[in-house]
This record gives sequence, C-alpha cells and structure tokens, in this order.
Amino acid sequence: MEGSTPRPPRPRAAPPSVGAVTLTPVPGVGIARAGDDLGLVVADALSRAGLEPAPGDVLVVASKLVSRCEGRFVRLPTVEPTADALALADRVQADPRLVTLVLRESVGVSRAVPGALIVRHRLGFVSANAGIDLSNARPGGAEDGSPEGPDDDPWALLLPADPDASAARLREALAARFGTAPGVIVSDSLGRPFRLGSMGTAIGVAGLVALWDHRGRADLFGRPLEHTETAIADQIACAADLVAGQADEGRPVILVRGLLLPPGEGRSADLLRPLDRDLYA
Amino acid sequence: MEGSTPRPPRPRAAPPSVGAVTLTPVPGVGIARAGDDLGLVVADALSRAGLEPAPGDVLVVASKLVSRCEGRFVRLPTVEPTADALALADRVQADPRLVTLVLRESVGVSRAVPGALIVRHRLGFVSANAGIDLSNARPGGAEDGSPEGPDDDPWALLLPADPDASAARLREALAARFGTAPGVIVSDSLGRPFRLGSMGTAIGVAGLVALWDHRGRADLFGRPLEHTETAIADQIACAADLVAGQADEGRPVILVRGLLLPPGEGRSADLLRPLDRDLYA
Repeated sequence: MEGSTPRPPRPRAAPPSVGAVTLTPVPGVGIARAGDDLGLVVADALSRAGLEPAPGDVLVVASKLVSRCEGRFVRLPTVEPTADALALADRVQADPRLVTLVLRESVGVSRAVPGALIVRHRLGFVSANAGIDLSNARPGGAEDGSPEGPDDDPWALLLPADPDASAARLREALAARFGTAPGVIVSDSLGRPFRLGSMGTAIGVAGLVALWDHRGRADLFGRPLEHTETAIADQIACAADLVAGQADEGRPVILVRGLLLPPGEGRSADLLRPLDRDLYA
Repeated sequence: MEGSTPRPPRPRAAPPSVGAVTLTPVPGVGIARAGDDLGLVVADALSRAGLEPAPGDVLVVASKLVSRCEGRFVRLPTVEPTADALALADRVQADPRLVTLVLRESVGVSRAVPGALIVRHRLGFVSANAGIDLSNARPGGAEDGSPEGPDDDPWALLLPADPDASAARLREALAARFGTAPGVIVSDSLGRPFRLGSMGTAIGVAGLVALWDHRGRADLFGRPLEHTETAIADQIACAADLVAGQADEGRPVILVRGLLLPPGEGRSADLLRPLDRDLYA
C-alpha cells in the first residue's frame, strides 16, 4: 500500500516477514506391511530423497502407514459380531463385523443413523467408524507378496494403538539416525459437523506444540486477543494433507519446513475439547 | 523401504512425486483502512515483494483485511440494543450492542450459554459471534491517522458482506494487473465442536475447487475410496493460517504455490453441510 496510498505510522511495528514454509512429500516410502519398522521406513525414504531433517522440521505421517507397520489389520471374516453390534448395525445399515470393531475401538456412540455411525474413539476424538478404514486396508494379497488370505478378503485397518507413542518412537528413531529430532504428527482425515469434506487431524503428536495458547498476546492495536487458542497441529495436518493426497498417490510422509512454532511439546489430547466445554457433544 | 526390506511389486504404480508446496507470507501489506482498494493493496504488495502470481497459485487473504477495505466497521456506542439482544446478552453475558450486531449478521442461534454465543451466520457457516471481531477492529484512531472517534472507543468489525464476491473481485484485479488470475480464498479463524483451537476456514472462494469430490477414484488397491470429499479450500486456509499468525504479525496475505488442485471452480457454500446432512445442527 505504501506505493499507492499514504500510509499512517503503524500502531505497532510489524515484525520482519518470515520466510516461506515448504510442504514436501517424501518420495519412495512405498506400501508398508505388518512388522515393517516405521523408523527405518521413514528414515530410509528421507535419506534416499536427500531430505535429512533440519532443526524445526515437522514430519506428518499418515496414520495408515503407522497402522500398517504396527499390523493393525483385522480380517473381517474373523470377527464375531456382538449382540450390541448386530442391533446397531441394523440401525446404521453397516456390516455388523465392522460395527463390532468400531464399538471395540470406542468409548461411546455420538450419533447413529442410517449410513452414519459417529463415535467417541477410545483416544478421545469424535469420528465416523472410529477411524477404521476399509480402503488401503489390505495387508497385501498375492499380488503384493504377503501371505494373508485371498485378495478379495474384506480387511479392516484400525488406527494405531497409541499414536502419541508412535510419533514419539518415530521422533527418537529419526534423532538417532540423523542427529536431529523433527516434530512428528500422526495424521488422519476426519469429517466434522456443519461443514463438508474431511480435514487433516493430528491424532498423534511428538516434539511440537499441539494447541497454541495466545493468552497474553496483543492484537495490532495492543488489544488482548479474543481467539486465544489455535489448533497448530491440526492445521499442520491439513497442510500436509494437501500434498499427501487421499487416494492412490501413495505419499504418506510429508516434510514441513520453515514453520515458526511457539516453544513447547504437546500431545494429541491437548486438542480434545473437554466434554464440559463442548456444546455439541 | 527399498533400501531396508525387500519390496513387493506395487498393486498400482505410484505417480511421480509432486514437488514441494510453498506458503509465502506477502510482506508490507500494512493495515488497511475503510475505502482502501483491496486489489491495489494486494497487487502492490505482491509487486514490491517480487511475488507476481504464477499459474496455479492460490492467494489466501485474511477476512479482516477484506473487511477493513470494505469499511465493515461499527462503533459500538452507535448500536441501539434490540429487546431480543438484551435478553440474549443477559443469557450469554455479553455486551448487548455486540449481541445486537451478532443477531443482525445471523439467521439463527445454534447455542447460547454464559460466555458463548454460537450462531448460523447469514453466509451459512456456524461460528461464535457471527465472526464479528473486536480485535484489530479499530478503523484507526489518532495514532494511526484516521479521523474516527477517540482511540479507546470500542469498535466491531463485521465479516465482508459477500466474501465470494470479494474473492472474485480480487482475482479479477490481480488478473488485470499481472495477466494471471490466482485462486483466491478469503479466510477466517473458526472454532469447532469436539476439538479445541481455531482453524483457518474458507469463507470466500474464487477460481479454485472448494470441496474435492473423490467419488470414482480408487485406493492403492483399486478399492473405491470411502472418504469421498476433502475440504480443499479449508485446508488451504489452515495452511496459510500457520504462517499468517493470529495476532500482531500483520501478515494477512499468503501466497500458496505448487498445489496440484483438481480442476473446477467452487464457492464457499460448497463447504456448508446441508442441515439435513448435519447430525449436530
């Protein structure tokens, strides 16, 4: 604007512009199988791509890659539907075996209508089908070399058992390999009330702030801010999701470089709204 | 993984890795005042920074900058509280003049409890206080050179009247100036159920897809995808919010470069969940 209209002096000096943030998909990660070492998988891919972590980097890893390495596969024909699941499956018109797994992974049902089963996951977040995925869920049939079952068997893939712990282990493995420990986010794509479309969501966090509390900071005019909390880790997961792709792109690891994050180390639970602060629970 | 464990052949060939996406804050935008030409403000800042738009670029502009240019300021002492607002203000323990403005900007109240007034904005999205902001809301008092009222007057800043139209006008102005029309998102920070922390949200969209429908696409194993929609424009707004800052950083314009977006042009309303598809309305 200085070039077009006379500028008033600023109430506060603007800080120097920060540099660009880059979102880089890490190539060549491939499709992991049960028992693969996540740290090795990610570290090798980073090395091959010449993307050794730098201080301040954040790695966003798709929960599906973590779950596959952790062997969170369930072959649906092996699931014995419970009575609760049979009744609920009838209500939501879903496979009773899937609903059995959903209930097993959940602490409560939030909404259940034909075509939609929204639960509070044991990890605390609210999502459809407890994040259990039937896409990219095959451990690998004949054509991709793993022994389990025929290719057309229906498989389910559960979320990692403890995504914060998975993120912390990956962070440690990368620190041991590269001498630098990036922040790590394990991400999943979740739907939401009010708005359409899935959003990247941080279900595991290690080595960075998850929720940024602005309290005490001032606006441009020195007035205390009203929005006092920003969902930093979820927004990073959304940014990564833009380049990770949701389908057959096969880009489950994204390197985020250049963020100026507030100090501190958070956990995925920092982003969970306490029930007594949730007007929509 | 190729370097560490034997790799099975892929069920589908992974596409070549995409390049990095960059999020660049545009420096020197300054603090706009009522009547400033948004297109000129943004184009001049881009020119000065040597950031002429390239094909495929997306510009994310903070709604506050748009509102300031459009003069959406209201001096609270000029607001005559309505009877409805007085009753509601008592219930939510807020300034009746602010509540009057909130009701004027809304089509319905979603939740009203002490300390929180969640409404469905006339633009269709659900937010606290209809997105009306009391931070960075001063049109500019003595110290920043504008005539309106004493510095300590309480001011409110309404969202742009029609953010999709504002985005389209900005897109046209940039096309006229640079010969290339970037996608434009007008963003705001909204809270949400279930999770803490505000998230960047696309309340105005021009020249890019807002909601990406995956239907028909296949997963890595050729199985139809389950998550069929991705909130592309909201995720871009989240990515931009990571570098825009929420407080006194003064970086209201972010250039996003390198996205591989599906073709098409959407609107902010594409991201609104129809009431009959909303289990939490």
